[in-house]
Amino acid sequence: MSTEVTVLGQKAKKVAATLANLDSTAKNEALLRIADGLLANQERILAVNQAEVAKAKADGLKASLVERLMLNPDRIKAMVEGLREVVRLEDPVGTVEKMWRRPNGLEIGLLRVPLGVVAIIYEARPNVTVDAAALCLKTGNAVILRGGSEALQTNQVLVEVIRESLRKTTVPEDAVQLLASPEREAAVALMKMREYVDVLVPRGGAGLIKTVVSNALVPVIETGVGVCHTYVDASADLEQAIKIVVNAKTQRPSVCNALETLLVHQAIAAAFLPRCGEELRRAGTEIRGCPQTLLHLPWATAATEEDWATEYLDLILAVKVVPDFAAAVDHIAKYGSGHSECIITTDYATARKFLQVVDAAAVYVNASTRFTDGYEFGLGAELGISTQKLHARGPMGLSALTTTKYIIYGDGQIRQ
Amino acid sequence: MSTEVTVLGQKAKKVAATLANLDSTAKNEALLRIADGLLANQERILAVNQAEVAKAKADGLKASLVERLMLNPDRIKAMVEGLREVVRLEDPVGTVEKMWRRPNGLEIGLLRVPLGVVAIIYEARPNVTVDAAALCLKTGNAVILRGGSEALQTNQVLVEVIRESLRKTTVPEDAVQLLASPEREAAVALMKMREYVDVLVPRGGAGLIKTVVSNALVPVIETGVGVCHTYVDASADLEQAIKIVVNAKTQRPSVCNALETLLVHQAIAAAFLPRCGEELRRAGTEIRGCPQTLLHLPWATAATEEDWATEYLDLILAVKVVPDFAAAVDHIAKYGSGHSECIITTDYATARKFLQVVDAAAVYVNASTRFTDGYEFGLGAELGISTQKLHARGPMGLSALTTTKYIIYGDGQIRQ
Repeated sequence: MSTEVTVLGQKAKKVAATLANLDSTAKNEALLRIADGLLANQERILAVNQAEVAKAKADGLKASLVERLMLNPDRIKAMVEGLREVVRLEDPVGTVEKMWRRPNGLEIGLLRVPLGVVAIIYEARPNVTVDAAALCLKTGNAVILRGGSEALQTNQVLVEVIRESLRKTTVPEDAVQLLASPEREAAVALMKMREYVDVLVPRGGAGLIKTVVSNALVPVIETGVGVCHTYVDASADLEQAIKIVVNAKTQRPSVCNALETLLVHQAIAAAFLPRCGEELRRAGTEIRGCPQTLLHLPWATAATEEDWATEYLDLILAVKVVPDFAAAVDHIAKYGSGHSECIITTDYATARKFLQVVDAAAVYVNASTRFTDGYEFGLGAELGISTQKLHARGPMGLSALTTTKYIIYGDGQIRQ
Repeated sequence: MSTEVTVLGQKAKKVAATLANLDSTAKNEALLRIADGLLANQERILAVNQAEVAKAKADGLKASLVERLMLNPDRIKAMVEGLREVVRLEDPVGTVEKMWRRPNGLEIGLLRVPLGVVAIIYEARPNVTVDAAALCLKTGNAVILRGGSEALQTNQVLVEVIRESLRKTTVPEDAVQLLASPEREAAVALMKMREYVDVLVPRGGAGLIKTVVSNALVPVIETGVGVCHTYVDASADLEQAIKIVVNAKTQRPSVCNALETLLVHQAIAAAFLPRCGEELRRAGTEIRGCPQTLLHLPWATAATEEDWATEYLDLILAVKVVPDFAAAVDHIAKYGSGHSECIITTDYATARKFLQVVDAAAVYVNASTRFTDGYEFGLGAELGISTQKLHARGPMGLSALTTTKYIIYGDGQIRQ
C-alpha cells in the first residue's frame, strides 16, 4: 500500500517537469477535452455513482453526506462549467513578477512556476475531484487525489475519464492520479512522502485537518475551519446589522464562512437583540446565549464554554454581550479560527481599529462574512480557504498553487 | 521545561498584537536603541563570550565552531552596522498590496501584516541572535530564539542587552525572548507549540533541518542546505567558465551557495578540465571525479555515489563528465537540493532551456552561485535562504517574515 503511494509519487514527480513547461494553450485544450469527456461519459459516471450512493444509504451514511456524494446531470453540468471557467482564467505560470539589474550587471528576475506535485486529501465530495484536478492542471502541477472512501468508486470513474481525455492531448495522463487504496495507512504514507510531494492540501472538517497536521512531514496548507464572528458595535446601524447577521448565519449555514458567534456591545443589546433574535428565530436558528443575552432573549438556551469554540455548520448561533470593543476583540483573538471576522459600525475610528487589530484571513466592516470565497473576491476558482499564515491566506486562487524561482542572467560575474 | 516554553509562547503571543500595529518610526527607534546598547555593553558581552569560548575550547569544540562562536569588537561593530542597515530598509508592514472594487460595491484590499510569533532555531552563532531579532522586530513579529547550547551564555547576555534597550522604548521587551533551557525537549516543545508559534525557521545544517522537519507541528520554513551545481556546456566560454567555477567553489567554501558538484559536457572536457582542475588545485581544492574526469585529472580521487549527494562546505569538489544537456539536468534533478544551479553557455536556446527546466530557488546563467544572498540580490538583510517552495523561496528578506490579510469595506452587502 505504501508501495502504491510511492509509485504514484514517482509518476507524479516524473511528469511534473513536463507539466511545468506546458504552454497555456496545451493546458486549456486538455481542460476542454476533460469537459467533453465528462459529458460524453455521463451515463457511465452516473451508473457508478448511483450504485455507490445506494450502498452508502444501505450502510446508513448520514443524509447530508449522501447528499454531497450524489451526482446527477445538473451536477455533472456544473463540473463541466467549472472546467470551462478555469480555462478562461489567466494562467499565472511563466509570469516574471519583476526583474531588476544589480550594480554588477546581474539581471535578476522572479519567475512564477508551479509548485510541482500537489496532494489533496478531501472528504466524499466527487466535485472536488474534478475541481482540484482542473486547478492543478491549469497551474502545471501534477496532482495526487485522495477522496473519502464512501466516494471511491465515483472518484475512480471520474479520474478514469479525466485520464482517458488526457490521452488524447499532449498532457501526460499521470498529471492526475487517484490514490485508490482506502486504508488510512495509505493516506498517512502520502502525508509523509517528502521526496515526491511538494505540498499537501487537506480540504474538509476540523478532524481531517488535525489528522493531516499531526501526521504530515510534507508542507501543508490548512484550510477551512471557520469559527467566524460578527461584532455589533454600539454605533451600528441596527437595520444593517440585522440584515447582515441574519444573512451571515442563515443563508448557507453549512459552510466555513458562515457566522458562528455574534458579539453585541452592551449599549446596543436591548435595542438590537430582541429584534435580531426574532428574525433569526423565524429563520429557524437556535440561539445559545450568555447570561446577558438570555435577559433579552428568554427563549434562548444558555451557552457553555464549549459553544464559544464551536464551528456549528448548522442553524445554531452563539451570542455574547460584551462590555466594549476591546472585549469583542479579545473574544475573537481567543476563540476565532483566523477565518473571517466582521464589525458592524458607523464609527470611522472603530472600523479602522478593527481592521488593524483583528488577526484573520478576512476582516470585514459592514458586510456578511459569507463573501469569503474565491469567486466572490474575484479570484476566479478557488481550491479552498487557507486559515494559516504561510504561503496563502484566505481564498486560494490559482496563484496559491504556484511558487517562484529566481532566474539570474549573468555574463561572467563572480563574487568578490 | 515545556512550561518554560509555554510561558515564552504566551508572552510572545500577548505582545504580537501590539507589535503588529507599531509604526515604523517606533520600530526603527528601538533598533537604534539596541545598536547603542550593544556598543555601550561591549565589555560586558565580550567578557561573557570570552569565558564561553574558553570553555568550548577546553571541551574540545572544533576550531571552526569556536571561530563562529567568538565575538570581538569588530564583530560587535558588525552587529551594530547590521542593525543600522535594517533601520534603513523599507518596512513592508502596512502596505496595501492591491485593492479592488467588486460589482456589489465591496472594496477588497490585501494588507501586508506580520506573521505574528516567529521561532528561530540555530547553531552556536551569536550574530544570528542579533540579526534575527532585528529582522523580526522590523517586521513587527515577536521572536523566540533558540541558539546552540555552546553559545548559551553569550546569547543570554545579548538578549539581556536587547531587552534592556527595549525597556527604554515603546516596544515591549517580550518582543525578543530567548529559550534558555539547553535540553533537547525544550526545543522539541517549541517545534510543537501550534497555539503560540506561527512559523519556525531552522537555520543551520542538514541535521538540524531534518530534526525540525521530523518533529515540528508548527509550519516550518526550511533553509540552507545547498548541493549546488554548475554545468559547463559544450558551448561555454572556457575563460569565463574557469573563472566562475573557481569563484563558486573557493571564494568561501563553507557557505550554502558554494559550488559542490561540477558537471562538464564531454565535448569540452578535454579542453576544460585540465586547465580548470589546475586552477582549483592551486586554490587547494581536492577533486573527486567520475572515471572520465580521472582521465583528464589523473591526480584526482574517484568519486563514490555518496559524493554526488554531499554538501561538502569545504575545499572539495565532485566532478562529473556528462554526455549532454539532458544528462546534466537529470543529475541536478536527482542530487540537487533546490538551492542554486548554474549553466555556463554561449548558446541562447540552451541558456533559456536551463532556466526553464531546472527546479531550484535560484537558477543562473554565466555567473557564480555565490550570489544567492539577500544582500547580493538587493533585498537588504536576509534571514536565511529557503529551499522549500511554500511561502518563501530563495533569500528571505523582510517580506518573507510577513503575510497578508484581506480587508473588506462594505456598506451592508449580504450574499444572495
